Formats: sequence, C-alpha cells, structure tokens
Amino acid sequence: MTATPSTPAELSGPTGVPCLTTVENTAPAVLAARCAELTRPAHPHQEVYGQYCTIHEYVDCPPDDAYAYLRQGHHLEEWTFSLRNFEPAGTPGLWVGDDLLEAGTRIYCRVESNAEARTVDFHCAWDQGEQLWMIYLMRVVPAEPVLGRPGSVITWTNCRHPYYDANPRPELAPGPDRAWVGAYWDLFYAGHTVEMSNLKAILEHRSHNSLPVSVPPRSAVAAADPGSK
Amino acid sequence: MTATPSTPAELSGPTGVPCLTTVENTAPAVLAARCAELTRPAHPHQEVYGQYCTIHEYVDCPPDDAYAYLRQGHHLEEWTFSLRNFEPAGTPGLWVGDDLLEAGTRIYCRVESNAEARTVDFHCAWDQGEQLWMIYLMRVVPAEPVLGRPGSVITWTNCRHPYYDANPRPELAPGPDRAWVGAYWDLFYAGHTVEMSNLKAILEHRSHNSLPVSVPPRSAVAAADPGSK
Repeated sequence: MTATPSTPAELSGPTGVPCLTTVENTAPAVLAARCAELTRPAHPHQEVYGQYCTIHEYVDCPPDDAYAYLRQGHHLEEWTFSLRNFEPAGTPGLWVGDDLLEAGTRIYCRVESNAEARTVDFHCAWDQGEQLWMIYLMRVVPAEPVLGRPGSVITWTNCRHPYYDANPRPELAPGPDRAWVGAYWDLFYAGHTVEMSNLKAILEHRSHNSLPVSVPPRSAVAAADPGSK
Repeated sequence: MTATPSTPAELSGPTGVPCLTTVENTAPAVLAARCAELTRPAHPHQEVYGQYCTIHEYVDCPPDDAYAYLRQGHHLEEWTFSLRNFEPAGTPGLWVGDDLLEAGTRIYCRVESNAEARTVDFHCAWDQGEQLWMIYLMRVVPAEPVLGRPGSVITWTNCRHPYYDANPRPELAPGPDRAWVGAYWDLFYAGHTVEMSNLKAILEHRSHNSLPVSVPPRSAVAAADPGSK
C-alpha cells in the first residue's frame, strides 16, 4: 500500500495509514464495546509498571515554588530515601553523591529542567558518570487548570532501560555482593511513592507554615562552618 | 513542632519536616519490606486510573519529527478517534471542531507546547471555549537515553478535573440526551490506548516509508481548492 499524502484527495479522505481506529471506520458504540473489553477490574503489576513506571501526586504548594524546589538537585538529599552528600563531579553540571541504599555506591546526577514546561529530569547512573541512563522524568503541573484547585500535580516517570536488567559495567561495583539497581525495578512504584510522599510532606509543611520552600545546599552550609562537619 | 530551617544545625541534620521516610530513620531492609507490602500482583483499575490516567508508548520515529507532528493541533484530526473539522474559533490560538463521539458536540482546543522539553498540552473543553479544563498533557521523550534505542517514548496524562463528574454548563449541551464526556473517564485508559496506537501507526508508517511525517491541515487544502469540499 502506498500512501499519497501530498494529494488533496488523499488528505481530505483517509490518511493512507493502515490499522487506524477512527470514527470513519468504527462506530462509536463499537469502540465503546472494545474499550469496555480492555478495561478490567484490576491490572497485573507487570502490565502497569513493568516497562514504564509513572506515579502522580497532588501537592498543596504553588507550582512555581514546587518547581523551584524540585529543579535544585541538592534537594534530592531531603526528599529521596537515600541520596546524600552530593558534590561537583568535575564536569560542569555533573554531581556525584552516595546512594546509601547500597554500601559504597556512588551515584552521578545531572539535572535538566525547563521553567516554562516545569519539567525536571534527573539523569543519573550508579558507579560512573559517562552514561547517565537512569532517568527520572518529573513535571510540576499547575493544579488549577487540571484539577480546579490551587497547588500542583507532580508526575514522575521512569522508563525501563535495558541496563536495569543487566549492569553494563559490573567491574565498577564497590564489591561483588553489591545488589544492582535493577533488582529494585519491581519496587519502583512503591519506593517512588514513599519518596513522593516525602516530597509532598516537605513542600506542604514549608508552604503551609510560610517557610522558605527551598533551602541552601547542606554542603554550602558545611563549607561556611567547617566545624559543623 | 516548629521547623527552624534557617539554622545550620537544623540544615545539616533532619529537615524538621515530620513524617519523612529516609535512610536516617528507616533501615534499607525495613523500606524494602514496606515496599514489598505495597507491591501487589495486581492493582485495582480505580487505584491506577481513577484520579490520573497516564499511558506510555514507544514509537519508532525520531523525537523531533514526533514532536513536530504532535504539536500541530490539526493532526488531531488524523490520530484521534473522533475530533474533526477544526477551524479558528475567533480568539487567537483557540480552535473549535466536532467531537463526533456525540452528535452535535463542539470541542474547543488550544495547544501549548515547549520545543525544548517536547511537552504538548491540549487544553480542551466540550461546548464552550471560555474554560478549557479537559487537559491532555503529552510529552515526546527521546528513547535513546531512556531506553537505549532510537525513536521516541510518548507519554500522555489526564487528571480527573471535577467537571468530568459534573458538567458545569449543562445548558450548553446540544440536547438533553447527549452523554457527558465524564461518563467516559473510566474508559480513558482504553480509549487513549486506541488513539495512541493510531498515533504510533501514523508516525511509524510515514517515518519507515520516508514520507513527510507532518501533513498540511485538511481545511487549508479545502480552502486552496474549494471545489473539493
């Protein structure tokens, strides 16, 4: 089948693309029946969270404050379960810290954010900083237009890169017994939910109490007062 | 409990925010056990898709092409099941078309996109264009960094605005028997999956066959050749 998308006749009729389901070839009632079939009372964990893992949370904090907090990588030390002690890794924009989930494990991280779309992407990897393949895609969405209430909706998506299933650089592990990050993939839904609850708690606590939502990096504080460390 | 986030002692220690779950107060093994409890073999439909509905799809089409296609609102006439006949609605950037899912139903739409983050948000509403509360949040993510393969991952999120459950302007319906869009919320996962399959089919068909991925608006074609309509 050859598509001829440059002729008006083709454009004003079908697209020339096979296998589309549209009102031109499927009655709404037929689509509704097909959708009802696809909609089951429960969905297996692997189907929902096996390849991609997205979680959502409503946070009662203005979107600009939530975005400003999220995009500053040092705040990972507050809201994640186990990322700590970030410091510059040499390359501009690249940071390295500890993932205290596993002893001796270093995590490299670069934050890419966009103020207009309020996307915040954490490009990370365990053990090395040359290829950042553990990517946490987050976005702060103003809740007013999408939910009719003040505050923010925060979304968080991970995609199952093949390296989760096979460590490409096992020789960089601090020891032979160190578990691989991919061993936790099936727990990402739960683990990220716990961390999103931390994020919500921090943002709402500070916002409700009129405290500054963002705080200085702990390392900068330590640097200003070396005796405190 | 009063937080004192402005003192170094507070900053270098706990955040002063109650109810956080972190490695400082929870052993990794305890977190793992808690996560294992939260991770069930299957998740009820309402828990996964009741308040937010996100779907994901891998598309074998370069992200720049996929983004350029998605952000042009007239392509909704190709990849959606039933949105057709868009024309300018008067206000700059606002379009109005037909949702052929329900007879006589007009849909208003404004597209907000960001080329750097590759987000494409469709702000829509049935019956009126003053408050666009049906918001389709989409994003084209380059697949290479997140999945280690060429192409794109497309994500699509809807949030359950209260108007899905109660039409704020029932007097604008074309007739008393017209079903409300919110009656379809529980089918969004399935219906959007069908439409995402259309989107994938179109992008891959054109990309694989070296055809232009984006096509001119049908209405412009009709305008250039009035006899064709």
